Formats: sequence, C-alpha cells, structure tokens
Amino acid sequence: MKARVIVTLKSGILDPQGKAIEGALRSLGIAGVVSVRQGKVFDIEIAEGDRAVAEARLKEAAEKLLANTVIENYDVKVMG
Amino acid sequence: MKARVIVTLKSGILDPQGKAIEGALRSLGIAGVVSVRQGKVFDIEIAEGDRAVAEARLKEAAEKLLANTVIENYDVKVMG
Repeated sequence: MKARVIVTLKSGILDPQGKAIEGALRSLGIAGVVSVRQGKVFDIEIAEGDRAVAEARLKEAAEKLLANTVIENYDVKVMG
Repeated sequence: MKARVIVTLKSGILDPQGKAIEGALRSLGIAGVVSVRQGKVFDIEIAEGDRAVAEARLKEAAEKLLANTVIENYDVKVMG
C-alpha cells in the first residue's frame, strides 16, 4: 500500500525557513503572498494488505521518527 | 486563499535521505516498509479571490523557486 505522511509545524512555532521563502517569493514578484510555512512529506510504500494495520504502523513511524510531536503535527493518508 | 504545494523527487532520482529513513524505520521495528521518498510541502496563504489566478501564481512560484523542475515534480492544490 502507498501512503503519504505530511509533517507540518504546529501553529505558534516560528518557521524562519518559511519566512525566507515568503520574502523570496515577494522579491520574485509573486503577488499576494501572505504567509508560507514549510513542512515535510514522506511517500511510503508499505507491504501490508490491511488498511487499518498499515495506518497504525505509519502512525507509529510518525510518532517515533518522522515527526517531532513537541513542535510538529502529522497527518497519515493511506492511498491503497 | 489557502493552498498547499507538494514537491517530490521525480522517479529515478536517487533519494539518500529517504533511504536513510527507510533503514531507520526498519531498525525501529516498523514492519513492512518497502520504500520511503522524502519531499517538501509548502502551506501558502495568498490574498487572491479568484481560484484560477491563485493557482496560476502558485504554479509560477513552484516553477521559479519552490521546485527544481529538472529533478522534482510539484503539485498545487488550492483549498479555498
């Protein structure tokens, strides 16, 4: 099964990288940019036929390794 | 409007970071991991009422700055 885990900073956590991109987009002339927040995406293939089991494993992966849950949120989507 | 731009490596482009994560997940005991590819996500807020215009601007942003289109694909989703 294919899955996508998206890890984003919690609101309130400063994102200097996002700020830098925001500034760069403005100086490139992209109009209307209000804010940019950068996160990470993990495209994971997992050998597991049961959707619920795959999701549980990926949540464990996110908790243990992919996200720092003190400052980041994660979202697991199993695409089947 | 809120939008999400996801940038991923094209298939065939080596992803040593993804490989490292793959190995780490295995040694953490997450069963069944076949492959991991890492990408980037940008959550962008753009002051523009017209969905099509917002999408066009974000595509321009992806082409000019967010993605290296030689080795990366991007996907723009305007969430309204």
